[in-house]
Amino acid sequence: MRNNIVHVGADELTYEIREIVDIAKKIEKFGVEITWENIGDPVAKGEKIPLWIKEIVAELAMDDSSYAYCPTKGLLETREFLAELTNKRGGAQITAEDIIFFNGLGDAIAKIYGLLRKEARVIGPSPAYSTHSSAEGAHAGCPPITYYLDPENNWYPDLDDLRNKVKYNPSIAGILIINPDNPTGAVYPKKVLDEIVDIANEYDLFIISDEIYCNLVYNGKKTALLPEVIDDVCGISLKGISKEIPWPGARCGWMEVYNVDKDPIFKKYIESICRAKMVEVCSTTLPQKAIPRILSHKEYKKYLKERNAFYEKASNIAYNKLKDIEGIIVNRTNGAFYMSVVFREEYLNENQKLHVENEKLRAFVENLVKNVPYDKRFVYYLLASTGICVVPLTSFCSDLKGFRITLLEKNENKFNWIYETVSEKIKEYLNV
Amino acid sequence: MRNNIVHVGADELTYEIREIVDIAKKIEKFGVEITWENIGDPVAKGEKIPLWIKEIVAELAMDDSSYAYCPTKGLLETREFLAELTNKRGGAQITAEDIIFFNGLGDAIAKIYGLLRKEARVIGPSPAYSTHSSAEGAHAGCPPITYYLDPENNWYPDLDDLRNKVKYNPSIAGILIINPDNPTGAVYPKKVLDEIVDIANEYDLFIISDEIYCNLVYNGKKTALLPEVIDDVCGISLKGISKEIPWPGARCGWMEVYNVDKDPIFKKYIESICRAKMVEVCSTTLPQKAIPRILSHKEYKKYLKERNAFYEKASNIAYNKLKDIEGIIVNRTNGAFYMSVVFREEYLNENQKLHVENEKLRAFVENLVKNVPYDKRFVYYLLASTGICVVPLTSFCSDLKGFRITLLEKNENKFNWIYETVSEKIKEYLNV
Amino acid sequence: MRNNIVHVGADELTYEIREIVDIAKKIEKFGVEITWENIGDPVAKGEKIPLWIKEIVAELAMDDSSYAYCPTKGLLETREFLAELTNKRGGAQITAEDIIFFNGLGDAIAKIYGLLRKEARVIGPSPAYSTHSSAEGAHAGCPPITYYLDPENNWYPDLDDLRNKVKYNPSIAGILIINPDNPTGAVYPKKVLDEIVDIANEYDLFIISDEIYCNLVYNGKKTALLPEVIDDVCGISLKGISKEIPWPGARCGWMEVYNVDKDPIFKKYIESICRAKMVEVCSTTLPQKAIPRILSHKEYKKYLKERNAFYEKASNIAYNKLKDIEGIIVNRTNGAFYMSVVFREEYLNENQKLHVENEKLRAFVENLVKNVPYDKRFVYYLLASTGICVVPLTSFCSDLKGFRITLLEKNENKFNWIYETVSEKIKEYLNV
Amino acid sequence: MRNNIVHVGADELTYEIREIVDIAKKIEKFGVEITWENIGDPVAKGEKIPLWIKEIVAELAMDDSSYAYCPTKGLLETREFLAELTNKRGGAQITAEDIIFFNGLGDAIAKIYGLLRKEARVIGPSPAYSTHSSAEGAHAGCPPITYYLDPENNWYPDLDDLRNKVKYNPSIAGILIINPDNPTGAVYPKKVLDEIVDIANEYDLFIISDEIYCNLVYNGKKTALLPEVIDDVCGISLKGISKEIPWPGARCGWMEVYNVDKDPIFKKYIESICRAKMVEVCSTTLPQKAIPRILSHKEYKKYLKERNAFYEKASNIAYNKLKDIEGIIVNRTNGAFYMSVVFREEYLNENQKLHVENEKLRAFVENLVKNVPYDKRFVYYLLASTGICVVPLTSFCSDLKGFRITLLEKNENKFNWIYETVSEKIKEYLNV
Repeated sequence: MRNNIVHVGADELTYEIREIVDIAKKIEKFGVEITWENIGDPVAKGEKIPLWIKEIVAELAMDDSSYAYCPTKGLLETREFLAELTNKRGGAQITAEDIIFFNGLGDAIAKIYGLLRKEARVIGPSPAYSTHSSAEGAHAGCPPITYYLDPENNWYPDLDDLRNKVKYNPSIAGILIINPDNPTGAVYPKKVLDEIVDIANEYDLFIISDEIYCNLVYNGKKTALLPEVIDDVCGISLKGISKEIPWPGARCGWMEVYNVDKDPIFKKYIESICRAKMVEVCSTTLPQKAIPRILSHKEYKKYLKERNAFYEKASNIAYNKLKDIEGIIVNRTNGAFYMSVVFREEYLNENQKLHVENEKLRAFVENLVKNVPYDKRFVYYLLASTGICVVPLTSFCSDLKGFRITLLEKNENKFNWIYETVSEKIKEYLNV
Repeated sequence: MRNNIVHVGADELTYEIREIVDIAKKIEKFGVEITWENIGDPVAKGEKIPLWIKEIVAELAMDDSSYAYCPTKGLLETREFLAELTNKRGGAQITAEDIIFFNGLGDAIAKIYGLLRKEARVIGPSPAYSTHSSAEGAHAGCPPITYYLDPENNWYPDLDDLRNKVKYNPSIAGILIINPDNPTGAVYPKKVLDEIVDIANEYDLFIISDEIYCNLVYNGKKTALLPEVIDDVCGISLKGISKEIPWPGARCGWMEVYNVDKDPIFKKYIESICRAKMVEVCSTTLPQKAIPRILSHKEYKKYLKERNAFYEKASNIAYNKLKDIEGIIVNRTNGAFYMSVVFREEYLNENQKLHVENEKLRAFVENLVKNVPYDKRFVYYLLASTGICVVPLTSFCSDLKGFRITLLEKNENKFNWIYETVSEKIKEYLNV
Repeated sequence: MRNNIVHVGADELTYEIREIVDIAKKIEKFGVEITWENIGDPVAKGEKIPLWIKEIVAELAMDDSSYAYCPTKGLLETREFLAELTNKRGGAQITAEDIIFFNGLGDAIAKIYGLLRKEARVIGPSPAYSTHSSAEGAHAGCPPITYYLDPENNWYPDLDDLRNKVKYNPSIAGILIINPDNPTGAVYPKKVLDEIVDIANEYDLFIISDEIYCNLVYNGKKTALLPEVIDDVCGISLKGISKEIPWPGARCGWMEVYNVDKDPIFKKYIESICRAKMVEVCSTTLPQKAIPRILSHKEYKKYLKERNAFYEKASNIAYNKLKDIEGIIVNRTNGAFYMSVVFREEYLNENQKLHVENEKLRAFVENLVKNVPYDKRFVYYLLASTGICVVPLTSFCSDLKGFRITLLEKNENKFNWIYETVSEKIKEYLNV
Repeated sequence: MRNNIVHVGADELTYEIREIVDIAKKIEKFGVEITWENIGDPVAKGEKIPLWIKEIVAELAMDDSSYAYCPTKGLLETREFLAELTNKRGGAQITAEDIIFFNGLGDAIAKIYGLLRKEARVIGPSPAYSTHSSAEGAHAGCPPITYYLDPENNWYPDLDDLRNKVKYNPSIAGILIINPDNPTGAVYPKKVLDEIVDIANEYDLFIISDEIYCNLVYNGKKTALLPEVIDDVCGISLKGISKEIPWPGARCGWMEVYNVDKDPIFKKYIESICRAKMVEVCSTTLPQKAIPRILSHKEYKKYLKERNAFYEKASNIAYNKLKDIEGIIVNRTNGAFYMSVVFREEYLNENQKLHVENEKLRAFVENLVKNVPYDKRFVYYLLASTGICVVPLTSFCSDLKGFRITLLEKNENKFNWIYETVSEKIKEYLNV
């Protein structure tokens, strides 16, 4: 190349949830069977797609119009269906024009931060789902700005920390909430959301609420969606079908925009996101056609209830297997399907290891763990000694050391084995 | 908002192919029936999806794995299938690792320019498919850089212009080719491609070849794909199924990378594109599963042949209806399904109009055409007087005045009516 | 122009101290005699340059070498002389290599912020000398970041505010101090400086201390220079002869760098400032030659003492004339030669005015004060009704409403008249 | 530092004219006496400042007002004096408002490029005075854009190259001319300037003409100043007293702006430069006061004539000593006081050397010349073997290999020795 063509922000793009796969694949070659606990794909973990859903999709596949482009913002009938769902909740009201479809929330997130002025920042949670934090950092050309989620307080946001950062850092223009949260499994009480809205209101910020898991809530908990608490504040919620139906392979998510007319700058920003989508023509058609049919199907509520019951059970098994171990902090998850385990700082050191039988593999791992954070060290040893693949918490834009594991395994015996093994290995590693 | 959150490059994002729809919708409200000739969606224009294709897709819809995430770069078996197709041509050889799937080429194009260093430019054709030119301009923060496609020479690239711009503008790092071309319908002879590769080779540039229409070539023409001519130059070709199957609603396209190991900067650039895709997890799964089944189906070749025969016939009808009109330049299209008509500069002035019966509509149009380019003026009058919706050529990053129209209408009577009407209206407008 | 050539940050550059001159010149044309209290030029206000200083300069003017370029950083003998002066104080030690000359501190300040990475911010005082705040804002492409100087506490920095902003805003890389302060006339106790150094130390920041007024301190106060408090923190102090000799027309100031070897990033930053100076060749020679001769002259100490005695007297007259007025906050100045008067918010409204005899001038002013901050409103009325030209406090990057006035007038009768008039006019304006 | 504070463009700032000094100082320590031929400081080379000039300056030093600030743009009477000088030439007419003073042209150049929009480029000569090229590159974040000065054609601009680059590179917004030129000593015929103005006019560009040497022209040549040829094109000329009086240590230069009202974007750009100067308060006062007195002094014309006679003689001696050497290209200089010698490419290789007696010094140089351009290799050897310090031509933003040497040495014997030695050493080096 006669010029350097590599973008200056290229190095900010990292996604450990997928990068760990390369390491696991190498360890697999030593003969270790890998148990993939790194990614939130229910289908890959054995969850079945109900026949009635597949029949809806197959039927749509026989319809020529499923093959055509759709409008820039998405199919009108689907957007009308979704707007009505939101409006029924009685909070902020929207029309079909306030909904924009994307090729999955990854696409939506790339647009949200990519179209944001470089100097304007969005503060997000730490730990954070790294698609958000990577995109925020890449847009600003420096590390993401975060508020603290407190593992000693159910992983709820530290609202003093959030308020102070907003107050004392004038470049913050927006607040990101993930609720239910990934990677912690926390579900925020309405009161927490109200306080975040108060902060946004006081300092004239907008709110982004990633609500991809909004219907996966259990253990008797309830939460509020953004429109129910947002009042007059400008906001965006992000929703999709990847986790709920579950159909992650559809790459079909959408953005709902609240109070777009309340602020002309916000309105111009949303319009620029629409134009960016228009330049790419539109988002994928077939899943959009399926959404109203699936969500209004007579089996849907029951199906969702069964899935939540499954996760509730999994949540409790996982929690009970880990809660009494010395040296770690765990919280019972109440939504989504991830759990985050934190090692107490004082229990970690640079000499800890797990037994790895195979000598060559042991040498391989010993080489890997040089100069890595302490939680990545544990994750690599766990992989080598058990094949269980989890993601270090420091990869989620966090200073806390720990790991994220899923609650997705459908085979009950295997599920129990995973959590028992993890429990044992933590004890072996911490020597507690 | 306490900060301005609108990106400085937001205004560069325009896409007239979709923006014209708003105008047409308003004219529709005056009682005019719109004939949509603005967008290249064969399905919307009445083309049928063959039963065997729909059956393949419907069958895949019954398979749980179609609902799961796929790997970051796309399904391995599909990438292997496509790599083999390319390698069989005998040019540059690739493996599955050199193929990356995107949610349609719009997504791929956004990544290609978005990950390019701000100071490095890609020169593209003028007129240009505006998704490319918008994205290039937005990445650089200023108007796109273009080489001239010559309507007096079959819409082939003006290679002197291209060579001079590359030679005298050191910020140019890459060359974009669209072949077969949109919006002109030109198919480039191998000799033209060889010369472009020579220029890239001499000045150490990379090449992007948008080959989305590569199998829609007719009138006995042939062209070469990028790997057949690229030799040792670094390059990317862009392919997809939106036009060929046709399945635009799938948002499924891919990038093939040639000679990635020949230049470390190019390699790092491609890796940054992969990382950007990884942060968004992956692209849509179901269409990827369908690709090998459809493309290797026994009916496929015949089906493609029939479609090309249809476009060949349409190309010739359209050409014959317009070729003898004074004051315009038309070329017989040989690929894709668009035709671009150019008004000779000296035939245009600011007072030309078409008769619009409805008085209120006439007033509406007269208001619209104030201070617009002369070709947009014609397009608005054509819309108001006939309902035929085409796209002004100046919207395709071109100084030439004219319009793009499609060859997609499946109803033969209507097709004839469209071209007869356009022919008449040009004559009325130019008074020739 | 075929391109837009105006820089995106161009609008951040404002300097009311000079912009007010245009308004005053217009008011002068109505027959009003202007009393220039807007700018800190002692010479223009009638201060005499002592004969012995002028003789030194005149003698140097007869020496050919005074006409030559000097080294990039400045004349070695002068830098050695200044390094020794600093080292004698017993704090951080420097060599001639740690001193860099500039064409006035305006030049130094432009380099300091211009060579700072766009994403790294320096927090400065509010109110602030606007050369600093303009340059900081222009470098970052958004408004400057500031900590609060508290008029209810002797204009000392609000250290809680400073600490919180540093803590909660990770983009802050440096702290600016102006001591003695412009525009407030405050002189900071050593304890305040120690706490600022503590904050810099805790959060690994560098410090810039603008000490242009460091030898103009009176009322029995003392302060410390940066090297006396800085310990191991990286820092820059800014000094010059414009206020002290006073020779503002020399455009001769310098930077002293402390602990450059303690941090490799800081070192690289300082080197980049040197390179920027080298590209401009060097700074002005003659004043550099004069510095050691003037500062080590037997008359110098006495001369400085007399000047400080003058400012002390002026400070007290000014303070006594204003201190008892209801509705304003004033502090006795202890250094430099500016005083800042603050209007209490609740005493201001949009209908206040001063009597302006001349009808046309009255109309002119009434037009001027539309949509301006309340303090600018007062400043314009004061100009029109008395000819006294002061600078609104909101022009010093402050939310406080008030004005800066100088203590420079050498004619005692006129000095008394100025402060008596201002006192009366404040009362008339506030109706107190 | 908790943040990286080093500016991304910091590495573009280079200035070999001063950087070579470090190398020379090291070689001096081996006992070699250095002859400084690297920098254009006549005073340092022994030129005497006439008594009458020094008396003017000394007299001004006794005047208090010489110590005060001046207006932002500079002293009104001096600007009026200079405007009249320009207007007398009968070309573009200006007023005092069209003149802005700076602290030397280095300061002016920093503002010119620093206030230029990042995407807008100014094409300059190659070889180029590096203060211009460094500043242009730093502003754009990539290498400077240049047109070719042809040593086979009197170092005149290659106008085809210039025209093509302007035509084919739409980011070019301005053209830089240096006339008389540094480093080549060329003086451009009016015809060349007319053609450059034609190009600017055709493509709607502005022109910057660095005319710091405009009164140092000899050998019977004449040139035109920018206002004499500029017609209606927007332009800036740069002038100063550093070379002409000569008073480089004054850091006093100015900008004359032509046709500022002919283009609103250009006007806004010039205003932004004024605002940047205003934020730094003003430029140095004393030399501005001296300018009218010196330039209108009865001795001035004679003095200038004598200096030009000196340079003419030096130019011819230098030219005659070098013109017949095989393997190099030299041109007789007609202005300024630099000569550039070019090595023909085919005469250079990586093994050439000059004899260096001192063994340690030889080892030192052999180490220095590893991986440096061939002309730098010669320059280092020349330094080590003779002490003559010249600047490699590749440091002037040029692909040509050669060096710049000055015509400044006042001692005639030494002057002859320098050029005889250089002549011999070239022959020894090239073995011709």
